[in-house]
Amino acid sequence: MPIIKGFSKLSRSQKTAWLREQLALSEDFESTLAEFRHPARQATFDDFSENTLTNYLLPFGVAPNFLINDQLYVVPMVIEESSVVAAASRAASFWAQNGGFQTRVKDLKKTGHLWFEWDGAAEQLLPLEEQLMAFLREALKDLTASMETRGGGLQHLQILPQEELPGVYQLLLEFYTGDSMGANFINSCLEAAKEPLNRFLEQKGLPTAQPLMAILSNHTPDCTVTCKVSCKVEDLAPYAGGLTAGDFARKFKLAVDVARLNTHRAVTHNKGIYNGIDAVVLATGNDFRAVEAAGHAFAARDGHYRSLSECEVADGRFSFWLTVPLALGTVGGLTRLHPMAQRAMELLGQPKAAELMQVAAAVGLANNFGAVASLVTTGIQKGHMKLHLSNMLTALGASEAEKEAARAWFSDKTVSQQALRDFLESRSK
Amino acid sequence: MPIIKGFSKLSRSQKTAWLREQLALSEDFESTLAEFRHPARQATFDDFSENTLTNYLLPFGVAPNFLINDQLYVVPMVIEESSVVAAASRAASFWAQNGGFQTRVKDLKKTGHLWFEWDGAAEQLLPLEEQLMAFLREALKDLTASMETRGGGLQHLQILPQEELPGVYQLLLEFYTGDSMGANFINSCLEAAKEPLNRFLEQKGLPTAQPLMAILSNHTPDCTVTCKVSCKVEDLAPYAGGLTAGDFARKFKLAVDVARLNTHRAVTHNKGIYNGIDAVVLATGNDFRAVEAAGHAFAARDGHYRSLSECEVADGRFSFWLTVPLALGTVGGLTRLHPMAQRAMELLGQPKAAELMQVAAAVGLANNFGAVASLVTTGIQKGHMKLHLSNMLTALGASEAEKEAARAWFSDKTVSQQALRDFLESRSK
Repeated sequence: MPIIKGFSKLSRSQKTAWLREQLALSEDFESTLAEFRHPARQATFDDFSENTLTNYLLPFGVAPNFLINDQLYVVPMVIEESSVVAAASRAASFWAQNGGFQTRVKDLKKTGHLWFEWDGAAEQLLPLEEQLMAFLREALKDLTASMETRGGGLQHLQILPQEELPGVYQLLLEFYTGDSMGANFINSCLEAAKEPLNRFLEQKGLPTAQPLMAILSNHTPDCTVTCKVSCKVEDLAPYAGGLTAGDFARKFKLAVDVARLNTHRAVTHNKGIYNGIDAVVLATGNDFRAVEAAGHAFAARDGHYRSLSECEVADGRFSFWLTVPLALGTVGGLTRLHPMAQRAMELLGQPKAAELMQVAAAVGLANNFGAVASLVTTGIQKGHMKLHLSNMLTALGASEAEKEAARAWFSDKTVSQQALRDFLESRSK
Repeated sequence: MPIIKGFSKLSRSQKTAWLREQLALSEDFESTLAEFRHPARQATFDDFSENTLTNYLLPFGVAPNFLINDQLYVVPMVIEESSVVAAASRAASFWAQNGGFQTRVKDLKKTGHLWFEWDGAAEQLLPLEEQLMAFLREALKDLTASMETRGGGLQHLQILPQEELPGVYQLLLEFYTGDSMGANFINSCLEAAKEPLNRFLEQKGLPTAQPLMAILSNHTPDCTVTCKVSCKVEDLAPYAGGLTAGDFARKFKLAVDVARLNTHRAVTHNKGIYNGIDAVVLATGNDFRAVEAAGHAFAARDGHYRSLSECEVADGRFSFWLTVPLALGTVGGLTRLHPMAQRAMELLGQPKAAELMQVAAAVGLANNFGAVASLVTTGIQKGHMKLHLSNMLTALGASEAEKEAARAWFSDKTVSQQALRDFLESRSK
């Protein structure tokens, strides 16, 4: 295969023709691409990215019965992993009957940096923060005017020398971005601050700076939401499996404590939280890479990567909560552009950004509750493999009759790849 | 809206009818759901998850010209964010002409834990590791036989007391899982180890254990891949913007050093790496939550969350590399079940798991290279906003004629939300 120049300029059919020429693709390759293109709205999806040949489909489902701050939601979820929607739904139903999810948004503050090199004396620069803030506010007002009418804009400024790199400074700007995630707004402001920064320094008779880079930070430890569930220990009985409610609560708390202390366990514990959060993030057209990066860095904020959730059992009450950073938008980005993200917003009743943060956090906590509850009772494989059974049978080439027989046979047995193979083999004899 | 019981048991049309009754949904809500269902293969997508109403479409594109260890790849990418595929493609073309990506997989080892409570004396238990390993090997052989024929299986065992929680132990098992990601295999083995663990303890005349939970760890610091690019500093000219190649290299390295030292910057820096990695992970039917959790925990492994990539400029050469944990599969999971994941594997030439890790890492490094290069030269907004322009115009309700005029007008100007609004307003006057 040779290097190709100008691939992006080719039409879609030229692109696929080139792929057919260069790669050993099966006969029906092109017809599969065509099958997954949208007959009427492909241009919408093409606009989201580049070199688009077709679409990748992920199941769009819903988890009903999410009672969050006394309001019931049906939550849209987009996820390709078996049992995530089922586990969220089951936990939601349980907690809806036990007080629901209580959530609180700490703040919506986001930050960005203009990094620059400067060879003046720091003690001349650092006292000028307030003046520089006023100067930048004025210089950027064309960019910020519209955001200010929506209650957002530039809020605060700090100048931070990067100790380990002499002569390197961080101009830290804090923003509110209304109901948008705000990445484009923040980046546009930061890039536009390069030139006025030097105008300001010149006015002050100081050496000019060498801008290095300007970009928002996805680390949003101040843009967080806390979500909590709590009930009498005895009310946990439906989740207790073969245990007493008291034993279940004790084991659940111990499992969460293990994830607080042990990084190897914490990573998977938090992964389960993001199974739920990302499903909502995807469904609503938000950016899951930003949410993941923020969340896991937050989990490591004290120098030890820990579980994002915590548990307490005291005075006969069980409490379970998490705090996660979530910089989500309900306007801007793809939220209003993606036809199914629009529908997701409709299902949620057109929430504001802060409300969507609370919903996503509740789903994360619901999935975490379901996972830990399974782990300390029946194990996760029983439920997961049952829901994954159809997929595994498809992969093994089972017929419809074999699938039906397998579902009946495994209804009271543990599914494993090997057990499935053995079952199908025994039938074919 | 009331709490609903048995929602998952309803047919799809009963589910949507209930949603219509309970929520203020628009007239065309159901027709939009129908529009995004697959006419022939919806059952495949329904099987992936639960309560599935329809599908969520993400653009499936390709980035050609990835030269990795002297082999050229066309890499499938699924991503909803503008400019990720374009940036990966541009960086791939550049590096294909400058030696390509050199990658090396460290190991494919994965771990899982059976956590248990035990009130015996640790010094009686810890010396029994080797005997317990032999015992478990035998006890689990029905589960591991098929994996062993594929070169995988149970490899190593350790018993680790959790110091902060007296009486709590981690039974650490190490696995190889062939070309599968292995989560189901590992979880099945770990859960099946609970009973034999106690049989073993009984045989030894020791108190029995209380199993707490058994699950794989998504923290895979030994299942990593390193990917590197390197060229003469002068060859960087095409990326240097208005700078000399030497100045560009110096600034690029400084920007990476900032991300090594500053967590607020590192989070976004790594987010950009995962823009590329996740696009490959999604396209090939792998689990991006697992990949993200592993990657960001790895970024924090020395107690300080840092950039995953590093840069060196020495003796006239520029070198840039990253090491990331990547537990990917090319069999099992959705890889062979999802019709477009199948096609993604075909485009990649049906790679083994280790090969897919190397491709994903190369795309991550390519996106990181492109992002940092933009940041230290023109800024990221110029390219990003140009590619995002169509989306913004759609959101503002622009006509085709207005879109065309806007593309022409902004071809040499910086796009911002405000500038776009002003442009459209000026034309409508």
